[in-house]
Amino acid sequence: MESDTGFQVALEEARLGATEGGVPIGACLISAEGRILGRGHNMRFQKSSPTIHAEIAALENAGRLPASAYKGATMYTTLSPCDMCTGACVMYKVKRVVLGENKTFVGGEVYLKQRGIEVVNLDSQECEQLMSKFIKERPQDWYEDIGV
Amino acid sequence: MESDTGFQVALEEARLGATEGGVPIGACLISAEGRILGRGHNMRFQKSSPTIHAEIAALENAGRLPASAYKGATMYTTLSPCDMCTGACVMYKVKRVVLGENKTFVGGEVYLKQRGIEVVNLDSQECEQLMSKFIKERPQDWYEDIGV
Ligand SMILES: [Ca+2]
Ligand SMILES: [Ca+2]
Ligand SMILES: [Zn+2]
Ligand SMILES: [Zn+2]
Repeated sequence: MESDTGFQVALEEARLGATEGGVPIGACLISAEGRILGRGHNMRFQKSSPTIHAEIAALENAGRLPASAYKGATMYTTLSPCDMCTGACVMYKVKRVVLGENKTFVGGEVYLKQRGIEVVNLDSQECEQLMSKFIKERPQDWYEDIGV
Repeated sequence: MESDTGFQVALEEARLGATEGGVPIGACLISAEGRILGRGHNMRFQKSSPTIHAEIAALENAGRLPASAYKGATMYTTLSPCDMCTGACVMYKVKRVVLGENKTFVGGEVYLKQRGIEVVNLDSQECEQLMSKFIKERPQDWYEDIGV
């Protein structure tokens, strides 16, 4: 599963975020046919933005699409999605959310399932290491990103 | 209640959205102390954006804030919030969501309450008229905005 293009792209985005001094979370939206629709990473510090989380960045990068484009789509994200990003996946009715890890943060996984969205956890060590390092070095910046 | 600054600002934003040829939904985030933290309106057509709904625009306009800034805050929005915007209010833990109307669309009101957020419906005729006109004239554009 970790060889999935969607996950690899999300991970590249997370690494890029780390390089930029941002929250190291990346995401990639893949269509039912396996095409990359959008990709992005958390931009809180790069753009001083409270809403451009990785999943929102990927949806925004995909641009305006009809509802049919999200049908059967998978949102890959390197971390368990927060309530906002969970809601975005629910609103656009993606089929599946594949997350890198949920050891450093547990988001809306239960709610995603309740709303009929499949959830897969890849338990990726690299995703966990990226977040653990960030949280250890900049705890306040992390709390701000998740409204804690 | 309709004399609230927050609601008046949200309504101004919705009218502005209509003038611009966009989805006529506006929002305004007000702090516990009654200060305007952020305001905005749906930018799907103006910016070709699938994520800048009114509530997201208001949060983004407020900029980076510590979690404490959202404490006791109210999100005013001219329409019942979709699942994405509901999730954003849940993530940042606003105290209250005041919505203009829910006759043209019912969003995450039940879930907001489940997550401990107060919900007030102002049943505003002007909000309803703005949306009814948009939905009648541009049904496909409206469906696209809510992923239907
Ligand atoms: Ca994120
Ligand atoms: Ca909106
Ligand atoms: Zn998020
Ligand atoms: Zn919304």
